Amino acid sequence: MAEVQVPTHHRALVYDKPGEISTKIETIETPKPGVGEVLINLTHSGVCHSDQAVMCNRWTWLPAPTQAGQVGGHEGVGSVVAFGPGAEASGLKIGQRVGIKWMAYACGNCMPCLSGRDACCVSGKISGFYTPGTFQQYALGPANYVTPIPDGLDSALAAPLLCGGVTVYSGLKKSGAQPGDAVVIPGAGGGLGHLAIQIGGKGMGFRMIGIDDGSKKDFVMGLGAEAFFDISKYGRDAEGTKKLQDDVKAASTDGMGAAAVVMCTASNAAYGQALGMLRFGGTLVCVGVPEGEPVPIAGADPGSMLIQELSIKGSAVGNRKDAIETMNMAARGIIKTHFTTEPMSKLSETFEKMEKSQLQGRVVIDLNKE
Amino acid sequence: MAEVQVPTHHRALVYDKPGEISTKIETIETPKPGVGEVLINLTHSGVCHSDQAVMCNRWTWLPAPTQAGQVGGHEGVGSVVAFGPGAEASGLKIGQRVGIKWMAYACGNCMPCLSGRDACCVSGKISGFYTPGTFQQYALGPANYVTPIPDGLDSALAAPLLCGGVTVYSGLKKSGAQPGDAVVIPGAGGGLGHLAIQIGGKGMGFRMIGIDDGSKKDFVMGLGAEAFFDISKYGRDAEGTKKLQDDVKAASTDGMGAAAVVMCTASNAAYGQALGMLRFGGTLVCVGVPEGEPVPIAGADPGSMLIQELSIKGSAVGNRKDAIETMNMAARGIIKTHFTTEPMSKLSETFEKMEKSQLQGRVVIDLNKE
Amino acid sequence: MAEVQVPTHHRALVYDKPGEISTKIETIETPKPGVGEVLINLTHSGVCHSDQAVMCNRWTWLPAPTQAGQVGGHEGVGSVVAFGPGAEASGLKIGQRVGIKWMAYACGNCMPCLSGRDACCVSGKISGFYTPGTFQQYALGPANYVTPIPDGLDSALAAPLLCGGVTVYSGLKKSGAQPGDAVVIPGAGGGLGHLAIQIGGKGMGFRMIGIDDGSKKDFVMGLGAEAFFDISKYGRDAEGTKKLQDDVKAASTDGMGAAAVVMCTASNAAYGQALGMLRFGGTLVCVGVPEGEPVPIAGADPGSMLIQELSIKGSAVGNRKDAIETMNMAARGIIKTHFTTEPMSKLSETFEKMEKSQLQGRVVIDLNKE
Amino acid sequence: MAEVQVPTHHRALVYDKPGEISTKIETIETPKPGVGEVLINLTHSGVCHSDQAVMCNRWTWLPAPTQAGQVGGHEGVGSVVAFGPGAEASGLKIGQRVGIKWMAYACGNCMPCLSGRDACCVSGKISGFYTPGTFQQYALGPANYVTPIPDGLDSALAAPLLCGGVTVYSGLKKSGAQPGDAVVIPGAGGGLGHLAIQIGGKGMGFRMIGIDDGSKKDFVMGLGAEAFFDISKYGRDAEGTKKLQDDVKAASTDGMGAAAVVMCTASNAAYGQALGMLRFGGTLVCVGVPEGEPVPIAGADPGSMLIQELSIKGSAVGNRKDAIETMNMAARGIIKTHFTTEPMSKLSETFEKMEKSQLQGRVVIDLNKE
Repeated sequence: MAEVQVPTHHRALVYDKPGEISTKIETIETPKPGVGEVLINLTHSGVCHSDQAVMCNRWTWLPAPTQAGQVGGHEGVGSVVAFGPGAEASGLKIGQRVGIKWMAYACGNCMPCLSGRDACCVSGKISGFYTPGTFQQYALGPANYVTPIPDGLDSALAAPLLCGGVTVYSGLKKSGAQPGDAVVIPGAGGGLGHLAIQIGGKGMGFRMIGIDDGSKKDFVMGLGAEAFFDISKYGRDAEGTKKLQDDVKAASTDGMGAAAVVMCTASNAAYGQALGMLRFGGTLVCVGVPEGEPVPIAGADPGSMLIQELSIKGSAVGNRKDAIETMNMAARGIIKTHFTTEPMSKLSETFEKMEKSQLQGRVVIDLNKE
Repeated sequence: MAEVQVPTHHRALVYDKPGEISTKIETIETPKPGVGEVLINLTHSGVCHSDQAVMCNRWTWLPAPTQAGQVGGHEGVGSVVAFGPGAEASGLKIGQRVGIKWMAYACGNCMPCLSGRDACCVSGKISGFYTPGTFQQYALGPANYVTPIPDGLDSALAAPLLCGGVTVYSGLKKSGAQPGDAVVIPGAGGGLGHLAIQIGGKGMGFRMIGIDDGSKKDFVMGLGAEAFFDISKYGRDAEGTKKLQDDVKAASTDGMGAAAVVMCTASNAAYGQALGMLRFGGTLVCVGVPEGEPVPIAGADPGSMLIQELSIKGSAVGNRKDAIETMNMAARGIIKTHFTTEPMSKLSETFEKMEKSQLQGRVVIDLNKE
Repeated sequence: MAEVQVPTHHRALVYDKPGEISTKIETIETPKPGVGEVLINLTHSGVCHSDQAVMCNRWTWLPAPTQAGQVGGHEGVGSVVAFGPGAEASGLKIGQRVGIKWMAYACGNCMPCLSGRDACCVSGKISGFYTPGTFQQYALGPANYVTPIPDGLDSALAAPLLCGGVTVYSGLKKSGAQPGDAVVIPGAGGGLGHLAIQIGGKGMGFRMIGIDDGSKKDFVMGLGAEAFFDISKYGRDAEGTKKLQDDVKAASTDGMGAAAVVMCTASNAAYGQALGMLRFGGTLVCVGVPEGEPVPIAGADPGSMLIQELSIKGSAVGNRKDAIETMNMAARGIIKTHFTTEPMSKLSETFEKMEKSQLQGRVVIDLNKE
Repeated sequence: MAEVQVPTHHRALVYDKPGEISTKIETIETPKPGVGEVLINLTHSGVCHSDQAVMCNRWTWLPAPTQAGQVGGHEGVGSVVAFGPGAEASGLKIGQRVGIKWMAYACGNCMPCLSGRDACCVSGKISGFYTPGTFQQYALGPANYVTPIPDGLDSALAAPLLCGGVTVYSGLKKSGAQPGDAVVIPGAGGGLGHLAIQIGGKGMGFRMIGIDDGSKKDFVMGLGAEAFFDISKYGRDAEGTKKLQDDVKAASTDGMGAAAVVMCTASNAAYGQALGMLRFGGTLVCVGVPEGEPVPIAGADPGSMLIQELSIKGSAVGNRKDAIETMNMAARGIIKTHFTTEPMSKLSETFEKMEKSQLQGRVVIDLNKE
């Protein structure tokens, strides 16, 4: 096995003023892998809205605010450079590319893990959130939990898929939709949505129906959607909602409604329109989480859910198997994503653009460039 | 095949003043079975809260009020006495006992029917609600949709199971709980709940946890529950709710919470306590429907449902296969129900007692007695 | 509703000398639809190997030989021209196109029907086999069981899909394979196989691996297969079998083997190679039925099946829901089939070519032409 | 955390002359737990037929014969006495009781493990087979893979359940049978069978039908079977087989046959009778493995399996979740097993009695006694 030289220190992006948008490049000590861990030389890390929420302390339901010096990031790809004790048993090789995702560690031992629900692991760790993240050149990961990146899949493409791709793939699976069923993606042109359209359509055989602003129509249809509805033409009031629901139903195979809505926006208003788009036995999968005070989903009352025997399911993130399968789909060319590569020094600027909704597609930080 | 003499007229209980509790025995013409129908000589009909709601026009969401002269009832058992054209192909025999349930007719032809969701049949008919019901000595039913009653199962016992038994069995199935899982039944001592405890426990291998007023404790534990919580000791406020949820979790196998809550009461407050009793991936099944304005279930917001990957499912009624399976369970002695038999003339009095919560167990009308 | 004139007599192709290839056009009486039936003016009927087996009395396990005068055929498409008593309740309209498939009638009432297993209906009827089939201009069908043909789907294309398309779609569903899984189709270039490649690949998101004679390679790859193996290069002996199994495994995502083999040939030798192509937990679906004495599948011994926890499933035909879904897939353009249209007088010649394996693709009889 | 004193050496039973029945007590060095491992002070180990097969080199399909000095046993229970590096992260405590089962180690990292198929783990290790087993006072186990033993479950009772109990529970789950379905257990009075009757019946809500020698009838019925057939009254010839199949069908709910047969004997003749006992869509689960040359299951030909859409599934062992669930069922009192406790010195004698079929129930070695 090839030896790889590991530096004593490396460059990392830290949140230097948690609560606002501010990141700083620092030189920090490179950690030694512990029991069962590998050290990964990261080359790419995607930048996600969740990073911003952690950095800015926007998730008020969290137990504690983010500390200064936190290294963020949870969409990292790099190659294995060192093994901790026992980690070679995983079968990983020095030089093999692997990814670190939102759930950076799940124990594999608790009942949620044994049930395939990594998100609910009783000792799970989230990358870039208390645990050091992927906005740095070297990071640790559990040998049995990092995601192997298939040959032929570009690292920069793989990085953002480790978060959004895995998340929507898992949500689509949990929806219970079957090949040929109509599945609606509100927010179809967004970071999650544009992946859902591709994975659900080309990857899983669903008939994808996109909802988003009309400016996204060509983009979404080009990804393989069978129908698209311009939300700006309907509005969120009762009348617009009814008309949108009727149009979605008319676009579904037999006019009865969609088998599933996988919610890829984080808007309470969008959630409030979803149940009425479903056919008998249909499922609303909650993926996007609205900010602010929790608001029960409109229509989530027993009587309304019972008449058409509807379901609502919360889907946090995918499990490790989902992550491997998503990478395999991407390696087969099913998922394309629009991303720009930026050097480390552009991270704050990226967050600022994100804040102003000025980003076109995803940004991936090239960790070899400052 | 034995010939059975069918009268030209029979006795029926009609709602003579819809909007209030009032029923009257009348002599009406006995119908001839149409294509695919059988005529059934009913001997027993259970009396259900839903009958009362229909009679009193309490379901304000219905398209039209109940008309005077409506024959109510949807838990009828009797024997086949005549075939309409084509109905013999069903394999039913003259004299064979069959039941009529809430869904009195489902087409077997639409996508909901082909998907096992009779409740959502596009041309379904509900017994005792627009369609003549089972509070009469003769009623029609589709030969391919009535429920065969197994030999050895008492007709008076079978009648109420056709509604409550089938409904909770279907809800328990839809819960996704597996043998050995903890399943909570709020309203465990009630009409639906006491059946759910038995079917889920002895019938399906779940560990049943009952919630109800303390006065029901012995009854519920005697039906096979493994634990019981007295709702009157907790209350519905935040503190009581938290304590109840913690106690339910502690009583579940591994202390993580129940795999499912199958809601057998019709109280918004009870719904609001349910999600917090669930373990990772758990499911709240909506069976009871609160009266009045629809209220979204407390906690049914995307963020809360996502953290533990919870589900909410609406379950209207069971399908025909569920009905057959429920009857088979009852014939095996798994389900006992507490009922009193009353003559036809006692129906109004029964509804009045129901109104005042004075009924002990179920009432079954003996249609051979006035 | 438009009235349609129905003749008293029509032209039909009968097996005049069962036991050999011989068909004859005769004028027979047009039947009146019975209870729940519709009369269909057929325009197209596909010709299938099973027709030939019935005509020639090759299925020695059948209870009785085919009688002279039998009208064969089980892939018919036409339009509704008359309703029997009660049949209008189905919602069908005069002029609406519908199809008749192998299972021409399933009762919808028995436990197999209620379980979605039409093939096992206790009173099922098979088109063209005892029951008059679709090689005629008018045929009866149950209003609740014929398959609606979606607008925009060509009748001649739909006809053969009613048999082979529905059959392989159902087999693929039963395989338990998930999107992204590798699925092997032995006989990939044949009548069933070429449909399986398209439905499984474009329709359901599987990674299709075809096996057939090398002459079919371009055809199969053009249908969307990801890999193809030329059976003539391997042979059926132990060494060739081992090599073929190894190559199939190498072509599957992770090199562990296919999630499923859906057997679209009727060769015992091909069956004998299948189990060794599967990964852990994989499934062999039996679709093709070898002629002659039944031979247990090589490797179907407890020890061999247990080590990798393999399954074998028999799949007879699809149910009505499968048929509707297959038609919907075809209407979306997912399934192309190669067929030639021939007049009624060419049926015997078609069977003779079939006997000599001289047919290129499927033959569809145009019932408007003699 | 309490410290526990660990000896440098301990007493172990080794196969001193593999190929014949011979065991010897030796003093061997107590190993130190490696990365992720715990050292367990075993108090009990069940004795299983598989131990005998390994000791006597009867599984000719194994890659290599058993070596002299092998410590056998795979049904061990004891308490944790020391942690290897990283093993405390598992949450186990010093003094906590845990079990070691047939699959002593599964990596949790390969696709079979991620799919819940521990038996197919690419780096799995089997206790007492190459890997040192449980016929000794101290053994190592992976902290994340040993099975916690619930409080209140007797160690001697738990030991044999770790093999037979888990195996049949997993086979019953894989059968796809639903509560109320009839499930047949050939070998119902044997080591696996008597557990299957209890777990399937009281634990999972199936209607259990036992088959075995008539001398076992009272025993099997006492465990909760609903019906029993004395195999000695039928024989294995065609006529006896047909009669047995007919009688099993008659005993199933609707006379159509069993939903599943879970084969708890290791007889090719018994396998050959199973498929004909199944109803439409039924499943034969292979658990027992006949010795000698593999023989394909009679009736496992495509045509026969297809007509009633039958399945055959190989089920090796349960996964870790199955093991935890089995222990939980046992702790609830659902599973009783008949066992005798013997000192270490009686192991050879036990194997000799096993050879002569003289054992009544299971033998558990008390590792605290020589």
